[in-house]
Amino acid sequence: MLKKKTVVELGNLLTIESLTCNTIHNLIDRAESFAHTPANSVDSLLSNKVIANLFFEPSTRTQYSFEIAAKNLGANIISPAIYNLSTLKGESLLDTIHNFEAMGVSLFIVRHNVNHTPEFLSSELNGGAKILNAGDGTHQHPSQCLIDLMTIKQHAKNFEDISVAILGDVFRSRVARSLISGLQIMGTTDIRCIIPEPLIPEHQEIDSKFCTHTIDSGLKDADVIVCLRVQKERMQDNYKLDEDTYFKKYALTMDRLKLASHNAIVLHPGPINRGFEIDSLVADSDHSMILQQPKNSIPMRMAILHSLLT
Amino acid sequence: MLKKKTVVELGNLLTIESLTCNTIHNLIDRAESFAHTPANSVDSLLSNKVIANLFFEPSTRTQYSFEIAAKNLGANIISPAIYNLSTLKGESLLDTIHNFEAMGVSLFIVRHNVNHTPEFLSSELNGGAKILNAGDGTHQHPSQCLIDLMTIKQHAKNFEDISVAILGDVFRSRVARSLISGLQIMGTTDIRCIIPEPLIPEHQEIDSKFCTHTIDSGLKDADVIVCLRVQKERMQDNYKLDEDTYFKKYALTMDRLKLASHNAIVLHPGPINRGFEIDSLVADSDHSMILQQPKNSIPMRMAILHSLLT
Amino acid sequence: MLKKKTVVELGNLLTIESLTCNTIHNLIDRAESFAHTPANSVDSLLSNKVIANLFFEPSTRTQYSFEIAAKNLGANIISPAIYNLSTLKGESLLDTIHNFEAMGVSLFIVRHNVNHTPEFLSSELNGGAKILNAGDGTHQHPSQCLIDLMTIKQHAKNFEDISVAILGDVFRSRVARSLISGLQIMGTTDIRCIIPEPLIPEHQEIDSKFCTHTIDSGLKDADVIVCLRVQKERMQDNYKLDEDTYFKKYALTMDRLKLASHNAIVLHPGPINRGFEIDSLVADSDHSMILQQPKNSIPMRMAILHSLLT
Repeated sequence: MLKKKTVVELGNLLTIESLTCNTIHNLIDRAESFAHTPANSVDSLLSNKVIANLFFEPSTRTQYSFEIAAKNLGANIISPAIYNLSTLKGESLLDTIHNFEAMGVSLFIVRHNVNHTPEFLSSELNGGAKILNAGDGTHQHPSQCLIDLMTIKQHAKNFEDISVAILGDVFRSRVARSLISGLQIMGTTDIRCIIPEPLIPEHQEIDSKFCTHTIDSGLKDADVIVCLRVQKERMQDNYKLDEDTYFKKYALTMDRLKLASHNAIVLHPGPINRGFEIDSLVADSDHSMILQQPKNSIPMRMAILHSLLT
Repeated sequence: MLKKKTVVELGNLLTIESLTCNTIHNLIDRAESFAHTPANSVDSLLSNKVIANLFFEPSTRTQYSFEIAAKNLGANIISPAIYNLSTLKGESLLDTIHNFEAMGVSLFIVRHNVNHTPEFLSSELNGGAKILNAGDGTHQHPSQCLIDLMTIKQHAKNFEDISVAILGDVFRSRVARSLISGLQIMGTTDIRCIIPEPLIPEHQEIDSKFCTHTIDSGLKDADVIVCLRVQKERMQDNYKLDEDTYFKKYALTMDRLKLASHNAIVLHPGPINRGFEIDSLVADSDHSMILQQPKNSIPMRMAILHSLLT
Repeated sequence: MLKKKTVVELGNLLTIESLTCNTIHNLIDRAESFAHTPANSVDSLLSNKVIANLFFEPSTRTQYSFEIAAKNLGANIISPAIYNLSTLKGESLLDTIHNFEAMGVSLFIVRHNVNHTPEFLSSELNGGAKILNAGDGTHQHPSQCLIDLMTIKQHAKNFEDISVAILGDVFRSRVARSLISGLQIMGTTDIRCIIPEPLIPEHQEIDSKFCTHTIDSGLKDADVIVCLRVQKERMQDNYKLDEDTYFKKYALTMDRLKLASHNAIVLHPGPINRGFEIDSLVADSDHSMILQQPKNSIPMRMAILHSLLT
């Protein structure tokens, strides 16, 4: 049975910074509980709740991860093809949301390419519906962060004593930004950001919390390596490298993995570019948690949805 | 509990003219009943019924309003992306419908840009499946009309003594056409159509039931103002106005609203063009029922679906 | 009640050749049982199972036939718009599948334009999820074959003594390829393939099991005629015929139908091209089983899904 004490009630889920260390531990416990509870004992927890997936950027895995999690709890979930339709008639984003709210939607799962859109929407909603940020621009992706923290917790005794290396376009990654904050909330201090030179923006203000490293020093004895997806269109023009050169200079290969702790785990938010930012040998190795993350995504998102809607 | 006596059995729902005053009152009563009934007491009323949303024109709000209403009653609803797929293989519309009917679909919710398509389809179906017209060309939109009548009834003592002003492209609006007929069925006689000059078609036969007015005379002491969405592509070439000029000359502004009854209500089928056909101050005022309409859409569409499928 | 003894447990469903005559008879019995069982007695047989429709080729009828069948059994089914999204981020097909499997999907219904893709995927899945081939290239379409065999069985005393004529692009039709194998498994020996000249590929190796005929000899006394959809883009350049000429020379018309057995039945996998490969008079005649096939598709696909997931 689900333990009542682990139920956290959330207002919205906009940023990982809105959660305390204690709340995050409770959400992870709740997710572990869902992972080990028979499906038929939870499949009416959110019956009669209407949830709307509003993905203004297309996404396969995140959208369907939420859809499966919602259905597992018996909720009705609608996924309007909003990136096609909303602009067709010029309706404003806010009017769309208010309309769905009037129709009984009590939670909006929002992905948008503009930073802070979920916060803007939550500030305008006053009828009781909540907002779950499923990724906004380069800003935040708190549910992914919770999945990653759950995955890390399954392999580390604690958060305080681990070394975490994040490899990739850290400056513009909402996954990295959320994870760094999430780890800091959990007490992790040794966080190394490894940003390949072609991905360093030209006029970037360096946030004081980003502690940058070379690949070798960053991976040295790391317990957790988070490899980010490279979006080729973001590379600086004068650094436009072919995949082979990028792979040789910056990818997470077996040789580089050997620099890390001998039982280091590798995370990647997916989808992975095999042979580009990560070697298939690494992605398919025992160190890889790359399929553990989508596996954890279902119970964690069930925990989040349940906390938001009860 | 739902009162048995309010259940109306409908054949198809093709036009508002097919309904009597008594049937419409019963549907509104039924919708009010659904609006105040706990969700879990009605969520299996249509279990094991298969409904197909066939939207040959894209739509966000109408399609998902029906989807939410259907799921609230426990029905299975499928929403094929028919505007992409149906023409891809050249299959005829009727063969598509017959195929879905053979697969067990008992109700088709049809939106099509050609007038009378739902009637054509209903005349060809002989296996027991029903048709609900969700908007055909410039002809009819009966479920929207029922939502609007429900909204009006919530604010008026009766239909006989109210003045209703309809502002916009009345000649080509299926919403206006259905509403005028619906109001006439309910006993309303004072219906004023206000059609901005750029939207008057060149060779339009004026239907005798359209009683046209200037803005000032049309809004004078009106109890209900229905503001229609302007579709810019329909404006005559020699009247192509910029939004500002149209707004100044024809939009529903606070100043114009003052001409109406002091407790007048404002309806709009949505999505609204803020600052074009309607001032945000009006849309967001206490007079506005623009969010009450989508709110009413769910229980009214539940009432319609239930009446069609029981 | 459903008879326990008719439940067949299937591993995957990749080709019709993987099934025995006995298994096919059992699946047909099971489908007939579903067709005559009240919906509410089977609507939780697959509750808490997650099924993914992965259609890399668009399809209306097959996709929604599976969706209705799955929902009739209470399963959760997701239908990602995978032909848009999967290539958008370059994720490999296999990584997509593994991700959905990690999220709890236990059955993938796969349509793909490359032959043997479902077999490839099934060989790579080792976590327990199964694959149902919903059509791969010109290779196989086993669930369609089972529907066709069920339809034939409803009208023939046995499979051994019937004559079956298949008219159309047999060489490149996965429907024909599966049906020929399926009929052979069931004991049918008199199978005639009638391939209009414009559809004969230039360098085709003739499979020994294809016994080709002229239209007249092929249709002579046939008990079952399967008319295939003509895909115009597959015609040889030097044979590009207009529809009228093709119709006159090769279509299934009432005159040609008279060559067959007096109670012959006509099947077509749909969608039909009226006036091209088939005369509307034939398609709408008493001989036509063209709407019986989608009707049978629901209970047969329920039987298949149930056999795969229990």
